[in-house]
Amino acid sequence: MTGRLAILAGEGELPRLLQAAVPDAVFVTFAGIDAMPPPGARHLTAGFERLGELFAALHREGVSELVFAGAMRRPVLDPARFDATMHALAPRLMQAMGQGDDALLRTVAGVFEEQSFAVRGAHEVLPELVLKEGTLFGSPPGTGDLRDAERAGAVLRALSPLDVGQAAVVAGGQVMGIETVQGTDAMLRFVGQTPAALWHKRGVMVKQPKQGQDLRFDMPVIGPATLRHAGAAGLAGVVVAAGQVLALDQPALRRICKECGLFLLAR
Amino acid sequence: MTGRLAILAGEGELPRLLQAAVPDAVFVTFAGIDAMPPPGARHLTAGFERLGELFAALHREGVSELVFAGAMRRPVLDPARFDATMHALAPRLMQAMGQGDDALLRTVAGVFEEQSFAVRGAHEVLPELVLKEGTLFGSPPGTGDLRDAERAGAVLRALSPLDVGQAAVVAGGQVMGIETVQGTDAMLRFVGQTPAALWHKRGVMVKQPKQGQDLRFDMPVIGPATLRHAGAAGLAGVVVAAGQVLALDQPALRRICKECGLFLLAR
Repeated sequence: MTGRLAILAGEGELPRLLQAAVPDAVFVTFAGIDAMPPPGARHLTAGFERLGELFAALHREGVSELVFAGAMRRPVLDPARFDATMHALAPRLMQAMGQGDDALLRTVAGVFEEQSFAVRGAHEVLPELVLKEGTLFGSPPGTGDLRDAERAGAVLRALSPLDVGQAAVVAGGQVMGIETVQGTDAMLRFVGQTPAALWHKRGVMVKQPKQGQDLRFDMPVIGPATLRHAGAAGLAGVVVAAGQVLALDQPALRRICKECGLFLLAR
Repeated sequence: MTGRLAILAGEGELPRLLQAAVPDAVFVTFAGIDAMPPPGARHLTAGFERLGELFAALHREGVSELVFAGAMRRPVLDPARFDATMHALAPRLMQAMGQGDDALLRTVAGVFEEQSFAVRGAHEVLPELVLKEGTLFGSPPGTGDLRDAERAGAVLRALSPLDVGQAAVVAGGQVMGIETVQGTDAMLRFVGQTPAALWHKRGVMVKQPKQGQDLRFDMPVIGPATLRHAGAAGLAGVVVAAGQVLALDQPALRRICKECGLFLLAR
């Protein structure tokens, strides 16, 4: 017997899209994380300091599968508020918090799996959000754009072993931005502020998972806001790893590509 | 017989410090690069499009050694303005402009060397600007700071083969910023704008040359402005590669460390 799905909701559109696809799912929000339960959804509130209570509540709801969806910041944890389960888990989690996102999320997922929840990826629940090889919105990229995409991909591959960076921007061979903790949109705003004297040519953002990244969590996501930021920064386009990036609201992505003269290519 | 030194001046303090150390040097400024000749210096103006004229002028002045000093942006070149020498050199230079800084500067230095100029590093002319192993201004870093410095150094080493990045910031294990074309100060401003929710702890900037970088040009430089930006961003300190980074105005660096509660460590 398969039980219910729980959506552990971070920021952004993705949690609500998952809830719409699986109306029976339990929507879990965490104190300090900006996520709104959709109207009508079965909703649990949770605190990172009281994971024992969350495990019990999920079991009571008949949940057997979980999906981590949307951006979650590293929480500030107050040990005075820990429940007994969290006291036992804290050393492992605290240690993992000093590492990259992927290492931390693997640890968190492991903690849930030990409670006999199966952790699914958002792309397994909503496979239609994954952009397939060759998908192109907007006009095709030029050879210079593809060369820039190659170099941005090489930057990301070089950083992968350090569990850093899902996005980078290269323009005319020059590296203009590398995603850090602040996320893709902050990087694009930074790139957009580059003085004209340092920036001669178009530019491409590549977004892809880190090599070896577990796609069940923190799978790279692009949405309308990402493309609008890319357009505002003056880029020529965005290249994503086919099959490994979630694309939210694809009709809007197609429309924004046209409006902003951008391309979006999955390859 | 050794001839005169020419200082090919980019932006920042370094060219003027070199001129003060070698009063007999010829100070060369390029159209479009913001560099001011010190009063009394022998001064040549040059254009990247007319390198043949520059070579001739340098020979006339008895110049046999050159030092590239200070930040130079990649110029926009107008082929209509090329002199004959530049017409011959342009294909090589244009090709190199699509690569990283180090590759470009090696090509440019090669062009000058073929004209029988010897290219020196600023650290050879002003060895007292290089911070020696163990130099510490401000209070000693903590073990967490040293761990952050390790991780920032690992990020820079990973990017070195791509000829990208002389500086990176890590705070509590999280990568907060990686220097791209916009330079160190722009990266520090970006880091300083990180929302508080994403940033729990201190943070350290590491500045070091790319592995295998030719220190004769684009040698990493820190100066008072760098430390002020680091302080304004809220960092705990700055770690530089001993013997491989130029430190301008060291009394001011020491003072700023005290004022801003920063450390500066060479190791």
